[in-house]
Amino acid sequence: MRKPIVTLTTDFGLQDHYVGAMKGVLLGICPQAQVVDISHQVQPFQISEGAYLIAQACSSFPPKTVHVVVVDPGVGSARRPIVVEAARQFFVAPDNGVLAMIYAAQQHKVRVIANQRYFRRPVSRTFHGRDIFAPAAAHLAAGLPAARLGKRIEDYLRPAFLKPQRIGKRTWTGQVLHIDHFGNVVTNFHGGDFPDLEMRNVSMALGTHELHVVARSYAECGEGELFLIVGSSGYLEVSVNQASAARAIGCGIGAPAELTVW
Amino acid sequence: MRKPIVTLTTDFGLQDHYVGAMKGVLLGICPQAQVVDISHQVQPFQISEGAYLIAQACSSFPPKTVHVVVVDPGVGSARRPIVVEAARQFFVAPDNGVLAMIYAAQQHKVRVIANQRYFRRPVSRTFHGRDIFAPAAAHLAAGLPAARLGKRIEDYLRPAFLKPQRIGKRTWTGQVLHIDHFGNVVTNFHGGDFPDLEMRNVSMALGTHELHVVARSYAECGEGELFLIVGSSGYLEVSVNQASAARAIGCGIGAPAELTVW
Amino acid sequence: MRKPIVTLTTDFGLQDHYVGAMKGVLLGICPQAQVVDISHQVQPFQISEGAYLIAQACSSFPPKTVHVVVVDPGVGSARRPIVVEAARQFFVAPDNGVLAMIYAAQQHKVRVIANQRYFRRPVSRTFHGRDIFAPAAAHLAAGLPAARLGKRIEDYLRPAFLKPQRIGKRTWTGQVLHIDHFGNVVTNFHGGDFPDLEMRNVSMALGTHELHVVARSYAECGEGELFLIVGSSGYLEVSVNQASAARAIGCGIGAPAELTVW
Repeated sequence: MRKPIVTLTTDFGLQDHYVGAMKGVLLGICPQAQVVDISHQVQPFQISEGAYLIAQACSSFPPKTVHVVVVDPGVGSARRPIVVEAARQFFVAPDNGVLAMIYAAQQHKVRVIANQRYFRRPVSRTFHGRDIFAPAAAHLAAGLPAARLGKRIEDYLRPAFLKPQRIGKRTWTGQVLHIDHFGNVVTNFHGGDFPDLEMRNVSMALGTHELHVVARSYAECGEGELFLIVGSSGYLEVSVNQASAARAIGCGIGAPAELTVW
Repeated sequence: MRKPIVTLTTDFGLQDHYVGAMKGVLLGICPQAQVVDISHQVQPFQISEGAYLIAQACSSFPPKTVHVVVVDPGVGSARRPIVVEAARQFFVAPDNGVLAMIYAAQQHKVRVIANQRYFRRPVSRTFHGRDIFAPAAAHLAAGLPAARLGKRIEDYLRPAFLKPQRIGKRTWTGQVLHIDHFGNVVTNFHGGDFPDLEMRNVSMALGTHELHVVARSYAECGEGELFLIVGSSGYLEVSVNQASAARAIGCGIGAPAELTVW
Repeated sequence: MRKPIVTLTTDFGLQDHYVGAMKGVLLGICPQAQVVDISHQVQPFQISEGAYLIAQACSSFPPKTVHVVVVDPGVGSARRPIVVEAARQFFVAPDNGVLAMIYAAQQHKVRVIANQRYFRRPVSRTFHGRDIFAPAAAHLAAGLPAARLGKRIEDYLRPAFLKPQRIGKRTWTGQVLHIDHFGNVVTNFHGGDFPDLEMRNVSMALGTHELHVVARSYAECGEGELFLIVGSSGYLEVSVNQASAARAIGCGIGAPAELTVW
């Protein structure tokens, strides 16, 4: 029998006991679970970064995986805990938009997690990762039907993460979505919306730089040369072979980019 | 059947192979173990930080969990390896005080780990995490009675981690115990010793700041406002909604704090 | 039955979803695998550091362990993916020298990974960790014979990682191989080539420092004193009791060292 998988994506960092405590609660309820860390290095309170990471990671996991996403600046406030069913997987998170990229890509059902029977007691006012999200996920992993956690809702938060805007016949404005460990600059121009870029004329303006080369692999370009590539994320990324494009350009998350294709 | 859980808390960091090597030894001896990282980012040689983290984490784990704690500036010296039974769990560590907060909170039995039959051979002089602590923990996880590792001792180290001192009818002096990833400043004033703080008049002096507001949740206060809260640690913490209180105050571990309640 | 172990060593860092995505693919193919992180903090593109870490870690793992090593500056180029059988374990990596220290220490067979049937489809041009190395490792862990992945090759890359050179009757030149989390400076002088150093006269020149003391344990020397020790790595290391030798000396990886023994 396949062991249930539970993934964790948080902004808790790795220095404290917070992630370990969540895993203890998970394994106490569902001892057969395989717990997998996606990232605990989301910038504190950066909901959009958590949204990007879980949307990127989830397609590598098999059906029935339970993804726990805790980037939760509103912990202890009236914001609701939710469970989402999408792509035959489960997502357990606060209702603050951190699942918005799942909603955008997949059919989904959203439920509020309301049944306190499945909470760890007493529920602290500052650590719902341990007291609400981990136990709910563990019960799902152990086979509890999602409907037992709470009722379906329709008024969940769906922030409009910025999509590129068309501003001319051949020109779109977008922005930097993520900068990864290697310094690759991930924009919000998706390769699926701009097919066959390698065979067209392309110009991207980002900061004071203008890019024209679209590569198929990192190794294709010379050292130090900035180029565009549709990365493993599916988005158009700015890269340098064996160096940090983010450092070369000097840009950060949210920086505006302009793409022209002809 | 429940799979045995082994947790790891060290100051080894994550860049080297040290933690991986410990896990290889653990799984070689006890293949069915679930290994859970609490933290490997304890400041090098900071016994008190390791003591805080394991005391915080252990209550989230089920009975029979084996906790390995290796913050071990005296590796290779005469300091003894020990195994402690407390709260129906096991703790494997050097006898240097890193389990002091377990001793303070729980009834406990302490044994020296002396039976070299359960060591990895040869024992290096610098890496007892791999050669003594991991194998001892793995054998416990696999069902070995603790008594097989060695005899009970009473002369184990019990450093008096600073507890708040009463210096007036309504005033105590204490100090900063921990600063977490979010910049929350954890003091050694425990909520259990100061009940119902939200309903009383409180003043805490920390560095050049004086705090009077006791909140129930982070979201209750405005952005940028410093406040007190009994955190998930059980201790009184100084926080700022969505920002780092440690940076706002400019204090570090060990900084003195004075609490007045009336 | 023993559960298969798969280890991961990469330069992916922990902030992104890359490591999590590899684990999702691994567990999708081989649900019973135990996945163990060795390190994801290899300096980006530093093949020699990855080579050192996997060579250090592998001996702590039981037979049949599958080690995945992805430090892969040439991803997407013509460099081949390979699987190596050595010491009754498997190593899955790009053919760029990252397994050179395994070749040097162990009898080994090398195969190219060519059978696309075992790839994740479509294969991206930038993330072979997820699309080629993880699936190949998972199939091996699930029992696939290595021969099914591809044919044996003999022309794999074997970079000559610098070994100490004898430059006089009693003198060798070598260099710094690794600097660990504690600041221990690992040289490429192996204890096996220089036996009984504690009982001989020794002089090592490193930067502007000259070292003469060979200790048996960290605790043997006073605080602040630099000394030599054959560390758990098996190599001669420069250390300071409870402080960073790398910071005290001001040296980095690759710095030259000269050893005289008489």
